[in-house]
Amino acid sequence: MPEELPDDFARVGSSLVIMAKAVREAMRQATAALLGSDPALAQGVIVRDAEVDVLYRVVEDRVYEVVARRHPAGDQLRMVMTSLQVAADLDRMGELAVHVARATLRRHPSPAIAAELAELFRAMGTVADELAGKIVAALADRDHVLAAQLDGDDDAMDELHRQLFAVMLRTDWPLGVEAAIDGALLGRYYERYADHAVNIGRHVMFLPAARAAEAA
Amino acid sequence: MPEELPDDFARVGSSLVIMAKAVREAMRQATAALLGSDPALAQGVIVRDAEVDVLYRVVEDRVYEVVARRHPAGDQLRMVMTSLQVAADLDRMGELAVHVARATLRRHPSPAIAAELAELFRAMGTVADELAGKIVAALADRDHVLAAQLDGDDDAMDELHRQLFAVMLRTDWPLGVEAAIDGALLGRYYERYADHAVNIGRHVMFLPAARAAEAA
Repeated sequence: MPEELPDDFARVGSSLVIMAKAVREAMRQATAALLGSDPALAQGVIVRDAEVDVLYRVVEDRVYEVVARRHPAGDQLRMVMTSLQVAADLDRMGELAVHVARATLRRHPSPAIAAELAELFRAMGTVADELAGKIVAALADRDHVLAAQLDGDDDAMDELHRQLFAVMLRTDWPLGVEAAIDGALLGRYYERYADHAVNIGRHVMFLPAARAAEAA
Repeated sequence: MPEELPDDFARVGSSLVIMAKAVREAMRQATAALLGSDPALAQGVIVRDAEVDVLYRVVEDRVYEVVARRHPAGDQLRMVMTSLQVAADLDRMGELAVHVARATLRRHPSPAIAAELAELFRAMGTVADELAGKIVAALADRDHVLAAQLDGDDDAMDELHRQLFAVMLRTDWPLGVEAAIDGALLGRYYERYADHAVNIGRHVMFLPAARAAEAA
C-alpha cells in the first residue's frame, strides 16, 4: 500500500508542529509569569508540560509505527529518525520553560528577577518567542529559508546573554549574590532554549512535511 | 540470515559502551583541570570531544544500518531506537565536560572556582565519575541492578548542589558576584551530567548487550 506512506510520515510531522506550538506557548507564558511575578501563570506552565510529554510519546509511537510497518530506508529512514531527535529537543525546550516558571514560584511574592534585569529578560523572552515561532512555521512547511535564519537569531540571544553578565558583574551591581545567581541560571535557561531551537533548524530539511489539516 | 542479527545489535551496544567510557574520562579530566587550574588538561578535554562526536555518528550509522537491513519490530525496534536516545545523552555529557574545561580556561591563571568551593566540586566530580562508571558497566552487561542505583547516586549530586548554594548564599560569602556566578553555572553542569546519567540508567533495560570483545 505505497499510497499510504505519505500519510504515515505526515502524521509524524504534524505531531512535531503541535509539540512546537506547545513549547512556544510554554516559554511565552513562563516569561510573562517571570516578568509579572505571577504564580498562577507559572503554575499553569508546569501543569501543561504534561501535555508536551504526551506529545513526545505520540511522536515516538508514530515513528515506531512507521518503521515497523513501512521498513523505510535511505532518506525516509533518516526522516523518521531525525523526527525523534527533534521531538527530544522540543521536549527539552518545554522543560526549560518549566525551569523559568519554577524560578518564579520559588521567589514569590518577591520577583524572581531584579528590576535592573527585567528589560533584558523581556528581550530574551522576545527572541525565544521569535525562534520558537520560526520553528513552528519551518516544521509546518519544511521551510529551509526560515530554518536557516535561526542561527542568526541565536546570535541575538547570545548578545543578550553577554549583556546580562556585563550588568551583573558591574562593580556597582547593588543586589548581591543571590540575585546574580538567579539571573545567571535564568539566562542559561533562555540560552539553552535557543540552542535547541537552532538544533531543530538544522534538522528541518530532513523532516517529514506536516499534514496541513492536522497541524493547523 | 537471522544468525547475524545478534552481531548487528551488539555492535550498537559496543559503540555505546565506548562512548560512555569516553565521556566518563572527559569529566574526570575536566574536574582535574578545574581543581588544578590546569589549562593543558582542559584543552585536552575540548580537543578529545571530537572523538565523542565521531562515536555519536558511529552509533547513528549502526542504528540506521540495523533498521534498514533488519526491519526490526517490537522489542528489537525499541532497542535500536533507545540506543539513539542514549547516544544523545552521552553526547551531551561530553559537552558538559567541555563546559567545565572551558570555565577553567576562561579564568586561567586564576582558578575557576574559589578555594571555598574546591571540596564541594571535588565531591561532585567523584559522584559524576561514579555515575559514569556505573553507566559503563550497566551498558556493557545490561546490568539493571546497577542502572537502578543511579537514581540514588543522583540524590547525592542534588545534595551537593544544595550545599553549594548554601555556601555561596551565606551572608559571609567573601568572594562577590563573579565567583558565585561561576560556582552556580559549574554546579549546574555537574547536575545536568548526573541527570543524563540517570536518563541512561532508565533506558538500560531496553538496550542491546555489547559484544564483549569490542567493548573491552
